Amino acid sequence: MMNKKVVLASRPQGEPTLQNFRFEESEIPEVKDGQVLLQTLFLSLDPYMRGRMNDTKSYVPPFKVGEELGGGTVAKVIASKNSKFTQGDVVSAFTGWQTHAISSGEGLQKLDASQAPLSTSLGVLGMPGLTAYTGLLTIGQPKTGETVVVAAATGPVGSAVGQISKIKGARAIGIAGGPEKCRALKDEFGFDVALDHRSSSFAAELKEACPKGIDVYFENVGGKVWEAVLPLLNNFARVPVCGLVSQYNASAPPSGPDQLPNVMFHILSRRLTLRGFIVSDFQDQLPQFHKDMTAWIQEGRMKYKEDFVDGLARAPEAFIGMLKGKNFGKLIVRL
Amino acid sequence: MMNKKVVLASRPQGEPTLQNFRFEESEIPEVKDGQVLLQTLFLSLDPYMRGRMNDTKSYVPPFKVGEELGGGTVAKVIASKNSKFTQGDVVSAFTGWQTHAISSGEGLQKLDASQAPLSTSLGVLGMPGLTAYTGLLTIGQPKTGETVVVAAATGPVGSAVGQISKIKGARAIGIAGGPEKCRALKDEFGFDVALDHRSSSFAAELKEACPKGIDVYFENVGGKVWEAVLPLLNNFARVPVCGLVSQYNASAPPSGPDQLPNVMFHILSRRLTLRGFIVSDFQDQLPQFHKDMTAWIQEGRMKYKEDFVDGLARAPEAFIGMLKGKNFGKLIVRL
Repeated sequence: MMNKKVVLASRPQGEPTLQNFRFEESEIPEVKDGQVLLQTLFLSLDPYMRGRMNDTKSYVPPFKVGEELGGGTVAKVIASKNSKFTQGDVVSAFTGWQTHAISSGEGLQKLDASQAPLSTSLGVLGMPGLTAYTGLLTIGQPKTGETVVVAAATGPVGSAVGQISKIKGARAIGIAGGPEKCRALKDEFGFDVALDHRSSSFAAELKEACPKGIDVYFENVGGKVWEAVLPLLNNFARVPVCGLVSQYNASAPPSGPDQLPNVMFHILSRRLTLRGFIVSDFQDQLPQFHKDMTAWIQEGRMKYKEDFVDGLARAPEAFIGMLKGKNFGKLIVRL
Repeated sequence: MMNKKVVLASRPQGEPTLQNFRFEESEIPEVKDGQVLLQTLFLSLDPYMRGRMNDTKSYVPPFKVGEELGGGTVAKVIASKNSKFTQGDVVSAFTGWQTHAISSGEGLQKLDASQAPLSTSLGVLGMPGLTAYTGLLTIGQPKTGETVVVAAATGPVGSAVGQISKIKGARAIGIAGGPEKCRALKDEFGFDVALDHRSSSFAAELKEACPKGIDVYFENVGGKVWEAVLPLLNNFARVPVCGLVSQYNASAPPSGPDQLPNVMFHILSRRLTLRGFIVSDFQDQLPQFHKDMTAWIQEGRMKYKEDFVDGLARAPEAFIGMLKGKNFGKLIVRL
């Protein structure tokens, strides 16, 4: 039996292209004692993967050229020589961009499809949901009546940030690209205001939407949204820095003027807190997150949206599109 | 009797010049019931005053053109119609750049010269000392064995930051301009390493001085020191943002490249915390500060250095020089 996989053919310079990916096949080795053989059902595509395609030191090691790309998955145990797993079990795993994988069982979590759809373990009940929950509540700390702003707001992190803000009594301003996504922000996710960052008067619209300023800006995009947010931040505003997706394809620093001194002045005079975090820093909050989020979903207070792409063959183009905002909801490859 | 004062003649564009200041005299009005007449003994000159000379919204309102400049002072009560004060009392006040002032008594704190030299209420036991104490301990939180970096390190804030870091068991790296100040950092203030920011190999020297990276950077200067510190910050490093004196005379944003995206990437990937603060935010820590600082001074663990300038007439040039780093220790005008 053959394993099909996507390997990193070369490191992208700026925007990734299809030439940076290569499909390979290899014989699946025999399952040894203690191991299980997994068949991938769902593969998660996430913006952080772009960072791992660069050869730079970061919080996770870079992908290696010529090896398969890593990523979170939902997989089925199709053979087991590990006493903890039986054939037919479905687990969350980190087996990456491939159809099959051998695993020692370490890090696998059994999933129960009767509790929640399996794919939600990659989104609202998985890493993106935990990212929103921990970054917003631990760093952002929204209070009743405060204003929270988040971009990429139909994505799995942004949509959870907005809805948790509402649950905590804050106003939620969501930013997305295009009228269809903006409609979803209000109609599906319950944001108070939806703004299209493609609008030529975006900064003015943001200002109008935040008459009492901004208390929490959940930073996951960087670039021009951050520039529009900065002058509106209130004294003692909090900025959890979770991602910078608008910057991930940049291959050189933008030309001037240098905005850093102005940002530092704002940090000082408005007593801002900017704090970066990685979801793994808050792994100890996983049980409470799971409890709260499951309850909110059951109560109808937490909606989620998934964007399925069928077949591993389409993963590279879906990933490239995601970095341009083409997905609509949590992007998942269904194998 | 006449009051002599220094008024803001015009707002500086970039570096202040003597033309931005004007000396005026006015008759001192009669002391009314409830009031005291104060004679200034010491006037504090501080970098934050430069910000107040601009007509921009900030955490304190701007100085008004044609009015006397504000500032912290030590003053003697020379006439009192307020039952809380008697002639001869010495108080800390905020009566600004003038020889005399009428006060309602509000905000005045009686000083006891037998406890500490009166001028220390403007420095190590006053606003700069409290700034160092609260920013370092509340935001910086240095731990045993960690590395703390501070610039303007012979100044009243920087020298206290370094010494409190040592008291807490951390390594202290001080940055100052010129060999004389660097000598004082090691010989008088007990920094582990002293670096001259004027050195052409400053960034390399900083790197060598911090073999285990930087855990706390107490930001009071901005500019090239911050740029040299950034790549050395460890995961979970803390950056209390207290001042940006190297930037205060800037009249326009510097030309590119734009360093902001790079800084945001560091905040994210190293999980940095940048937090701005103003000393008044931490006013509730004043009693504990006073207790700790007084004890440290008495134990010989907290040294301080004062740079006296004689006569109000010399205040403008002393202030202009301070923004260029010409003072050596807490800058105080002695009247």
